Amino acid sequence: MDHIPILKVDSFLLVSIQVELHDELAMSLQDDLTQKLLKTNSHGVLIDISALEIVDSYIGRMLSQISAIVGIMDATMVLVGMRPAVAITLVELGMTMAGVRTALNVDKGLALLRRSLDEPGRIVAAP
Amino acid sequence: MDHIPILKVDSFLLVSIQVELHDELAMSLQDDLTQKLLKTNSHGVLIDISALEIVDSYIGRMLSQISAIVGIMDATMVLVGMRPAVAITLVELGMTMAGVRTALNVDKGLALLRRSLDEPGRIVAAP
Repeated sequence: MDHIPILKVDSFLLVSIQVELHDELAMSLQDDLTQKLLKTNSHGVLIDISALEIVDSYIGRMLSQISAIVGIMDATMVLVGMRPAVAITLVELGMTMAGVRTALNVDKGLALLRRSLDEPGRIVAAP
Repeated sequence: MDHIPILKVDSFLLVSIQVELHDELAMSLQDDLTQKLLKTNSHGVLIDISALEIVDSYIGRMLSQISAIVGIMDATMVLVGMRPAVAITLVELGMTMAGVRTALNVDKGLALLRRSLDEPGRIVAAP
């Protein structure tokens, strides 16, 4: 697979990552996501990593970077479905994913996006 | 990967198939999906196959079977994101996917589910 599908759910984009995010795939995800944000005029992105048993520092950095890019494009990214073991590993690796919003699952992430996009002076990303 | 993630989006379940549905994976998807239908009390399932470049007769049969199972469980399955080449191949293989509802993408599939679940005497599957 050379592209991860980006699904439009209402006014948001949903990405379910199920395979290892190697370099090329991460790059194409960045490209595809930014293009689709523009094309669909979306302001929210959900990235589900519930299928990932391992998130190393490279993938962690990639996800942080995508979150920053999405933020600059006036949208909010929420990372959802992180397994407990993944959270533990990330912190042990010294990655606190600062600036990346998280939610337990897609449902809670959707609720978070809907709430934050309703607010006046939209919240783009936590500092 | 031994399980395909099943994401709860509002009152529906969303499955994005990105890897080849071999025997074991298809079985675990059936199991997981039926369990999750019960647990979440959902009445709609969206299966996105936009990442699949090839759908052979085995996968086609599996998708039909899952649709029938979901239908028996008083829910509606909508297959979304089928590539044109896949549709052509399926018909050439003699599989018309009768009884399986389809939509062009997740957004249209969601709209279809919302419409059909609003109707009195809910439509479960086309005959």
